[in-house]
Amino acid sequence: MEKIMEFEFSKEFLERFKLALTVRDDVYIQESLGGVRSADICEILSEIGIEEAKYAFDILSSDIAADVLVELEEDFRVEFMEYFTINELSHFIEILDSDDGADLLNELSPQRREEILEEIKNEEKVGHLLDLIRYDEDVAGGLMAKELVKARENWTVKRCIEEIKIQAENVEKIYSVYVVDQQERLKGRVSLKLILLADENKKVAEIFEENIISVGIFLEAQDVANIMQKYDLDAVPVVNVRRKLVGRITIDDVVDVITESAEEERQLMSGVTSGIEEDDGVWVISKARLPWLVIGMTGGLIAAQIADYYSGALNIIARLSLFIPLIMATGGNVGIQSSAIVIQSLAGKNGFHDTLGNRLLKMFYVAMVNGSILSVIVFGAIMLLFKDQLLAITASIALLNVVLLASFMGTITPLLLDRFGINPAIASGPFITTANDLLGLTVYFSIAVFLYSL
Amino acid sequence: MEKIMEFEFSKEFLERFKLALTVRDDVYIQESLGGVRSADICEILSEIGIEEAKYAFDILSSDIAADVLVELEEDFRVEFMEYFTINELSHFIEILDSDDGADLLNELSPQRREEILEEIKNEEKVGHLLDLIRYDEDVAGGLMAKELVKARENWTVKRCIEEIKIQAENVEKIYSVYVVDQQERLKGRVSLKLILLADENKKVAEIFEENIISVGIFLEAQDVANIMQKYDLDAVPVVNVRRKLVGRITIDDVVDVITESAEEERQLMSGVTSGIEEDDGVWVISKARLPWLVIGMTGGLIAAQIADYYSGALNIIARLSLFIPLIMATGGNVGIQSSAIVIQSLAGKNGFHDTLGNRLLKMFYVAMVNGSILSVIVFGAIMLLFKDQLLAITASIALLNVVLLASFMGTITPLLLDRFGINPAIASGPFITTANDLLGLTVYFSIAVFLYSL
Repeated sequence: MEKIMEFEFSKEFLERFKLALTVRDDVYIQESLGGVRSADICEILSEIGIEEAKYAFDILSSDIAADVLVELEEDFRVEFMEYFTINELSHFIEILDSDDGADLLNELSPQRREEILEEIKNEEKVGHLLDLIRYDEDVAGGLMAKELVKARENWTVKRCIEEIKIQAENVEKIYSVYVVDQQERLKGRVSLKLILLADENKKVAEIFEENIISVGIFLEAQDVANIMQKYDLDAVPVVNVRRKLVGRITIDDVVDVITESAEEERQLMSGVTSGIEEDDGVWVISKARLPWLVIGMTGGLIAAQIADYYSGALNIIARLSLFIPLIMATGGNVGIQSSAIVIQSLAGKNGFHDTLGNRLLKMFYVAMVNGSILSVIVFGAIMLLFKDQLLAITASIALLNVVLLASFMGTITPLLLDRFGINPAIASGPFITTANDLLGLTVYFSIAVFLYSL
Repeated sequence: MEKIMEFEFSKEFLERFKLALTVRDDVYIQESLGGVRSADICEILSEIGIEEAKYAFDILSSDIAADVLVELEEDFRVEFMEYFTINELSHFIEILDSDDGADLLNELSPQRREEILEEIKNEEKVGHLLDLIRYDEDVAGGLMAKELVKARENWTVKRCIEEIKIQAENVEKIYSVYVVDQQERLKGRVSLKLILLADENKKVAEIFEENIISVGIFLEAQDVANIMQKYDLDAVPVVNVRRKLVGRITIDDVVDVITESAEEERQLMSGVTSGIEEDDGVWVISKARLPWLVIGMTGGLIAAQIADYYSGALNIIARLSLFIPLIMATGGNVGIQSSAIVIQSLAGKNGFHDTLGNRLLKMFYVAMVNGSILSVIVFGAIMLLFKDQLLAITASIALLNVVLLASFMGTITPLLLDRFGINPAIASGPFITTANDLLGLTVYFSIAVFLYSL
C-alpha cells in the first residue's frame, strides 16, 4: 500500500550488477546507476567487493560521486579511500562542503592529508579545512560547516539576495542569512522565507531577528543536538568566545548524532564493544562480544569462589543454593532499572535537576516500596512451596537488602561515570551488572550465616 | 566557555516566580517571562502547580501560549487542558498548524473534541483537523501537517512567490513549493532557494525537480524517520494511494520520533513499563518498575523449583550449586548480545537483509566460537581452583550448550516479536532474560545428572 519512491533492492539486481562489473560492462553500470540516489548507491557499493566498488564509483558523475563518498559508512570509506590517488581525493574534498571535506581528511593518514591540502587550489577552502580538522567530532566545531551566507545590518534585502546568489554554489542548504557586525560578531538572522516575503528595499536592520540561539565551538555534540531539538531549529550558528560567527550546524548532521548516540547506548547496554552490524563477519562479531562475556564469566567464577567460601553453610543448608538465581536476578533487574532512569535523565534536556541528596532519597523510597512488596511475596511463596520459616525469613530479608543495595549502586554508578566523562550507559552493561551480582550474593550468604547462626 | 543563549534556570528564579504567582504579581510574571522561549516556558510551567501554571499561561501572548501548549510534555498537557474552557481550546487549536491542533484534539475526550470543532470558524481548518485525527500517531498521516504551498507546472516563479506570500501566514516553515497537476497529484518540488535564485519569469515546469521522494499516508513513523535521515530531507510530502498530495512532514517532527523510539527502547530493555521520568513521584516510579521485578522474581522462584527438583543431585554434589551464577550470567549476557544486534538491524535502514537461515547459521558460528573459548577458560579455571575434573567437564559442556541455546533464543525472539508487530526491543528486557535463565538452569542440571550418572 505504501508507495515510497525509493530504489528497489533485489538479489537479482545485485547479481546482475556484479556480473556487469566482472565483464566491465560500463554501459550497463552507468544505466543502472543513472538517477539512483547517492544513499542508495552507497548501499550497493558496500555490498560488492572494494575494487569493484571503485570501478563503479569512477563511472559516476563527479557531483554524485562526491555525495556518495560522504555518505558511505565510515569503516568502509576508510578502506575505500586507500584505492584513491591524491589527485582524486583532493578533487572531491575541494568540491565538498568544508565539514564533509574535513571529515574525510580526518580519516586519512597525516601524510596524505598534507599532500591533499597542498593539491587544493582554492585558498579559502584550504583555510576552512585547516580550521575544521582541529576539532573533535563530538563538539560543535567538529559538526559545523564554514560555508554560510552573511549580511550586514545596513544592507538591503536586495543585496542579501545578491549575496545568496553569489554563495549559492558553495552553500547547499540555506535556511537563514546571518547578520554580523564589522568585527564579524553574530547579531542575528533573517530567514529565507522572510527575505522572499520582504520588500526588496527594506534594510536588514528593520527585519532581522535578534537574540537568536547560537552555540560555542566547544559545546558537546549531544548538547548541540538537545538544543536544536528543544527549540526546533533547522540550523544553528556557531560562535567563538568573542561571539565571532565561525560556522553553522544543520539539522541533518545533528540527526546523525542522535541516532549514533542511541546506537552506542544500545551497544553499551547490551555489552557489545565497538560498532558492529549484523552483516559483519563471524570473527568480527565474535571478537566484539567476547570481552564482555569473559568479564561476565569471570564474575561467575568469583561468584563460585564466594559460594565456596560459604560452602560450610551450603552443606548444612543445601536449600540456600536454591535461591541464588532469585537473589541475583532481582538484584540485576533493580540495578538496571535504577541506572536506566538516571541515564535517561542525564541525556535529557530538562533544565532542572535534582540534587544528589534528593535523588538518593527518592531512590531509597522507591527501593523500600518495591523491596518490601517483593520480600512479602517471596516470604509467602517460600512458606507455601517449602514450608520453611527460617528459609523464608532469610530469603526475604536478603532480598530487601539486595534491592536497596542494587538501587543505590544503579543510581550512583551512572552519576559517577558521568562525572568522570564516561558514557553513563555503561552502568547498564554487563560490567556493573556483574559487580552487582557479586555484591548481592555476598549479602545473601552473610545474612544467611547470621540468621542461621552458622 | 560555551555560550548558549538559553534561558538560565535557577532555584532562586523558580522560588521568586512561585512567590509572584501566589501574590498574583502579574507585572513580575509578565516581565520575567518576556522574551523567554516557549520551550523554556514549558519547563517552568511543569515545575509549578497546575493551577499556578494556568494562571501564568493566561498572561502569555496568544502566539507564545499556543507554542507552549504544543511543546508541553503530553502527560502534563492532558491534565493541564482540563483547566481550559472550550472557547480557549478552540482558539488555540484554530491558530496552530493542523498537525499540532490534531494532536491536541486527540488528547481530549470525544465530547470536548466535538464541541471544539463546532466552535472553530475556519471551515478549511476544521476539514484539515477532521482529516488528521483519523490517523494513528505512529504513521505518516499522524505526523503530517496539511499546510503547505502548492504550485502548478505552468506557473511562473513570480506567481509562486505570490502564492507563498498568501500562504506564509499559515505555513510556519517553508522548505519547498510542491508541484501538483490538475488532479492534485504530486509531480515534484521547487526548493525555496531555487525560487529565490531563479528568474521571476521562468516557468515552474523548467526548474522543478521531478522524481522526488514521497511517503504514503500509512507508512510507519519509524520508516518515515529512516527515509528522511537516509536521504537528508528537511521535509517530505505525503501522498495517498492515488498519489494525491495530502500533507507534508517536517524534520522536527521526525527528530521527536527518533528520540522517542530510542527512549522507548531503553525503557523496554531496562524493564521499566510506561514512559516515566526521574522527576515523577515515588509511587509512579515504583509502580512502573514493579511488574518486571515480579516477573523476574517469579522466574527466580521457578528456578528454585527447578533446582529443588534436582536436589538429589545437589545433595550429592554440593559443588554443582557453585556454578549456577556463572551459567545464568553467561546465558543472560549472550542472549542480550544476540538480540541487541538483531534489534539494531531491524530498526536500521539497510536495504539488504539476510534470510532467516543465513542469520541462524551465522549466529551458530559466532556462538560456537565464543562458547568454545569460554568453555576452555572455564574448564581451566575449575581445574585450577577446584581440581575436580568431572566438575570441570560438566560446567564447560553445560556452558557451551547454554551459549548456543541463548544465542538461538536471542536471535529468534526479536524476529518473532517483530513478525507479530511487537517492538522487538522487549527481547532484551527482563521477560525474555528470565526465560533464558530458566532454560539455562535446566540444561545445566540435565547435563550434570547425565554426566554424573545420577
